[in-house]
Amino acid sequence: MILSRNADEYKQLIESAQLPELELTTDPKTCDIVLGEPKLIMDALPLLSSLKWVQSIYAGVEPLVDPAQRRDYILTNARGVFGEAMSEYVFGYILFHEKKILERIRAQQAKQWRRPESGVLRGKTIGLLGVGSIGAHLAGTAKHFGMTVKGFTRASETSPQVDKYYHGKELFEFADGLDYLVSVLPRTKDTNQIVDANLLNALPPQAVFVNVGRGNAVDELALVKALEERKLAAAVLDVFEKEPLPEDHPFWTTPNLYMTFHTSAITYPPDMSKLFAENYRLYMEGKPLKHQVDFERGY
Amino acid sequence: MILSRNADEYKQLIESAQLPELELTTDPKTCDIVLGEPKLIMDALPLLSSLKWVQSIYAGVEPLVDPAQRRDYILTNARGVFGEAMSEYVFGYILFHEKKILERIRAQQAKQWRRPESGVLRGKTIGLLGVGSIGAHLAGTAKHFGMTVKGFTRASETSPQVDKYYHGKELFEFADGLDYLVSVLPRTKDTNQIVDANLLNALPPQAVFVNVGRGNAVDELALVKALEERKLAAAVLDVFEKEPLPEDHPFWTTPNLYMTFHTSAITYPPDMSKLFAENYRLYMEGKPLKHQVDFERGY
Repeated sequence: MILSRNADEYKQLIESAQLPELELTTDPKTCDIVLGEPKLIMDALPLLSSLKWVQSIYAGVEPLVDPAQRRDYILTNARGVFGEAMSEYVFGYILFHEKKILERIRAQQAKQWRRPESGVLRGKTIGLLGVGSIGAHLAGTAKHFGMTVKGFTRASETSPQVDKYYHGKELFEFADGLDYLVSVLPRTKDTNQIVDANLLNALPPQAVFVNVGRGNAVDELALVKALEERKLAAAVLDVFEKEPLPEDHPFWTTPNLYMTFHTSAITYPPDMSKLFAENYRLYMEGKPLKHQVDFERGY
Repeated sequence: MILSRNADEYKQLIESAQLPELELTTDPKTCDIVLGEPKLIMDALPLLSSLKWVQSIYAGVEPLVDPAQRRDYILTNARGVFGEAMSEYVFGYILFHEKKILERIRAQQAKQWRRPESGVLRGKTIGLLGVGSIGAHLAGTAKHFGMTVKGFTRASETSPQVDKYYHGKELFEFADGLDYLVSVLPRTKDTNQIVDANLLNALPPQAVFVNVGRGNAVDELALVKALEERKLAAAVLDVFEKEPLPEDHPFWTTPNLYMTFHTSAITYPPDMSKLFAENYRLYMEGKPLKHQVDFERGY
């Protein structure tokens, strides 16, 4: 069963993949495999009496790992399919900042031949809060542009493109000297407000904070204060504690804050269908699936 | 002799390189080597009676290849030192366009949670008008982002990152299907108005034109017309037929035109000093220098 706003596109892609013994169905009782959006699947869970495997088309699966929901099936999420889009988004905004694009637009509007000096990425340092498959992709693009890459993770050190890893109590050592701090952290109980006043104060004043993970990682009022006091140069936020952002939220008018409304990485159905086909073959062979979610850990 | 607005920085860098038998001088009569900006060097040419070699710190050396000037010395220009900066500039604007950054800023100013769909670079096609060392660097970044790269050159096919080369009469075949057309052409008599109404009409309507070469390559009024008639999506211009751009030039108010006032690649003195040191060693050994300019060809 396909449960997605893009069901037609997925249907076409899955059909053209000609996966053996796979039948598309709309009957929740007989369906054992579901591909789709976590929220829509959560709503259908009580009806899915034969459910064995759910492939989420998103990386974030919060609705499905909620302790109130059943956990008697295999849940796999979308990983390895957002790296490219995230990398374009993050470096789009990093270059937008370094190249002073907005300043140039304003000079042009004022009909002034003004030449603000651009920064260069080479030699600058980027810090990745969380280094999963998205972080690894960001690290690759950072190295392409000659940057130094620091990575903060719980324990893993999986990307060889990260120059130095930091863990646990080394958070402030990690933050020291960063030109860019990028959070790609998932929403879990351990990631709440990691980016707080202390961490923001530890950043150099030229630093730019980018959040493409989840909004819970940020103490939002501390970030407003840090930007107002020019303790960091700018922030780019794609995710928020509450989405859509409430109308009276201070972020709307905070200086040097750029918001993008949870659009940094839209799932690209052809990539997602390829991942589904790969996992389907493993499923039929009774092998462990790729990107299986630990319900307890939450990702 | 050093002739540059950044003479102090170059002096320090050259001194610390400890090049054998090299003495810095301010006496034009005894000086045989000059490092600096073409315009300043041109003004000094009549006084430089012992001149043997000029290393330009720019890629463009128009004042020195002017037929009215003497040509009794070796002229080398700066190549291989702008690729990185140019690549950051060009991809900064390409991502600015694909990610609809300005549209997002406007949504934020209007306090609206709006989610315009971003484009992705993968699968898109970039066409490079001129593939020297800058073009090769742009090709490398384009490949990093999964783009297809077409290259138009007089004859050379030096960059392996270019997927397909076009020459001479194949200009319209080259333009066909481009998402981005980037000119890195030098100013020569052969590059005048290559980007004219015919070429602009041959581009698909989603195409963006970027000029980081020289302004003479563009028929500026044809470009204004093409943008006004939405025959292409946008243009990013760093260079112009006349600089600074005259106050009454239509570019100031042409829709979807972004101007950056000849700042796409500022010379980075440490890179430049490294190139000078390399050429100095070749010079002392009597060997051919790197990036020697053909006065007749102009680059």
